[in-house]
Amino acid sequence: MGNRKDRPAVSIAHSLLPSFDINGRKMEIVHTVRDMQIESDIVRKVGKSIGFVPTMGYLHEGHLSLIRLAWEKADVVVVSIFVNPTQFGPEEDLDKYPRDFGRDEKSASEAGADIIFYPSVEEMYPDGYATYVTVDRLTETLCGASRPGHFQGVTTVCMKLFHAVKPDFAVFGQKDAQQAAVIRRMVKDLNLDLEVVTGPIVREADGLAMSSRNTYLSAEERGDALSLHQSLELSEEMIRKGERNPTAIIEVIRETIDAKEKTRIDYIEIVHPETMQPLAKIEDEALIALAVFAGKTRLIDNTVVRV
Amino acid sequence: MGNRKDRPAVSIAHSLLPSFDINGRKMEIVHTVRDMQIESDIVRKVGKSIGFVPTMGYLHEGHLSLIRLAWEKADVVVVSIFVNPTQFGPEEDLDKYPRDFGRDEKSASEAGADIIFYPSVEEMYPDGYATYVTVDRLTETLCGASRPGHFQGVTTVCMKLFHAVKPDFAVFGQKDAQQAAVIRRMVKDLNLDLEVVTGPIVREADGLAMSSRNTYLSAEERGDALSLHQSLELSEEMIRKGERNPTAIIEVIRETIDAKEKTRIDYIEIVHPETMQPLAKIEDEALIALAVFAGKTRLIDNTVVRV
Repeated sequence: MGNRKDRPAVSIAHSLLPSFDINGRKMEIVHTVRDMQIESDIVRKVGKSIGFVPTMGYLHEGHLSLIRLAWEKADVVVVSIFVNPTQFGPEEDLDKYPRDFGRDEKSASEAGADIIFYPSVEEMYPDGYATYVTVDRLTETLCGASRPGHFQGVTTVCMKLFHAVKPDFAVFGQKDAQQAAVIRRMVKDLNLDLEVVTGPIVREADGLAMSSRNTYLSAEERGDALSLHQSLELSEEMIRKGERNPTAIIEVIRETIDAKEKTRIDYIEIVHPETMQPLAKIEDEALIALAVFAGKTRLIDNTVVRV
Repeated sequence: MGNRKDRPAVSIAHSLLPSFDINGRKMEIVHTVRDMQIESDIVRKVGKSIGFVPTMGYLHEGHLSLIRLAWEKADVVVVSIFVNPTQFGPEEDLDKYPRDFGRDEKSASEAGADIIFYPSVEEMYPDGYATYVTVDRLTETLCGASRPGHFQGVTTVCMKLFHAVKPDFAVFGQKDAQQAAVIRRMVKDLNLDLEVVTGPIVREADGLAMSSRNTYLSAEERGDALSLHQSLELSEEMIRKGERNPTAIIEVIRETIDAKEKTRIDYIEIVHPETMQPLAKIEDEALIALAVFAGKTRLIDNTVVRV
């Protein structure tokens, strides 16, 4: 992967966008939809491409890998930071969701972001707001079953962000495999003229999938949470050895996670990676996905296997 | 209003779009979303504007007035013709909805259309289709109450069409006042970078609002259907004379329409022109809207009054 330093000091974004202070400033913060659209129009009008990484902030190495991926492919990289209230359930962690804009600004810039789109909740959902985007079927399993309304919040905010940023492509993490599939479905169904790119799961040294929510974990919960990744590795091993029965694989994953003190399984499912429908038998491709509470913190992880 | 002949024989669209046969051909028919996007990108890239008129075809003078309006404001005019199945209820007239593409092609061209976007149902809703756009509240009254699911069909297909055509503005008829308000709400809420323009109701010489469905009417039904417009004129007269009580106005409209043999009232409502919520008293602006069956044909009409 290239390095930011390989590019001219004054990037394409800096040379195009008059609002950039090019005297040493590396990145711009945009707060309103209209300003974002104006800047994107300038970039697109000269035939330059825009890569977009939507995030809820509190950026970790997983997000940064997606920003670097966008930076490789696009002339201008836009990262949005917006903790979207409509994708949290009433009992979920909206209020305590971790935030650190100062740190995000620095790390996004270092990873290659040219613009951070950082709207307020009032900018995104003003009084009288009434419109929602819904994807059926794919959203009824896995996290969709556990978190009613969650995916409607995700698809709606992504549609709004896509219209604000006008990207050539948008990058999503494979850790949220169902989210990426739902967005691909929405983009195809509603004829959005953009590409959906997926970046691989990034893990801590011990295998725990990176997540902003890992910050909630106690040391003991953190230890027990390793069973998510370990059980997925076990399932891959079973499939390599010829197992094709989802029930048998799910049972081994369940035993592995249940053996830990602090874990409580939300779901373990083996589904088709695009339709998210449960598989009766593993053929071609399968997504093995799980959601597990470690203490009060809900963690997800997954793997895609090809046979 | 200008005339098509005032423009150069080879229009901007013809000079820009390589797929145009400029030897005498006045208009292009585009069948796929991807082709439409490619042509729109060409137009937009050179800084020319696109005006868009979505229709279900069987064009009458009402539609043509919207095409002329688009032609006045835009460099390139796109008219879509698509009888959208998802906005018809199971008991409605999808199968018998009138169609005449040959006539539409000719009249759209004469009114100023450069491109007709004419996709198939399979192109718009391929196997596995799963995504819908919903506007709450505004869609719960008037036609939304009478036709469950209708507006979800309308908003979803408009979103798809907007992404295919990429217009600078889209033109809707004021005859479908609630539809225009719902689309304005959707465009604002989802940050679509386009303007929603509304063209006035066009009427037959006797006052009947133009509609593709007027073709269903028998002579007797056609005569009785004049009570829609007549009752709206009565209501305007009452308001001019100082009446501010919606109930009193609705009662007069009801009596006028009920006096006819072939009419059956679906609804008569006086609402806020943007929120579509019923008014307790007429202040500022009011939309007086009605839907009436003449025989089996459902007709709508409305007027906006300012006091």
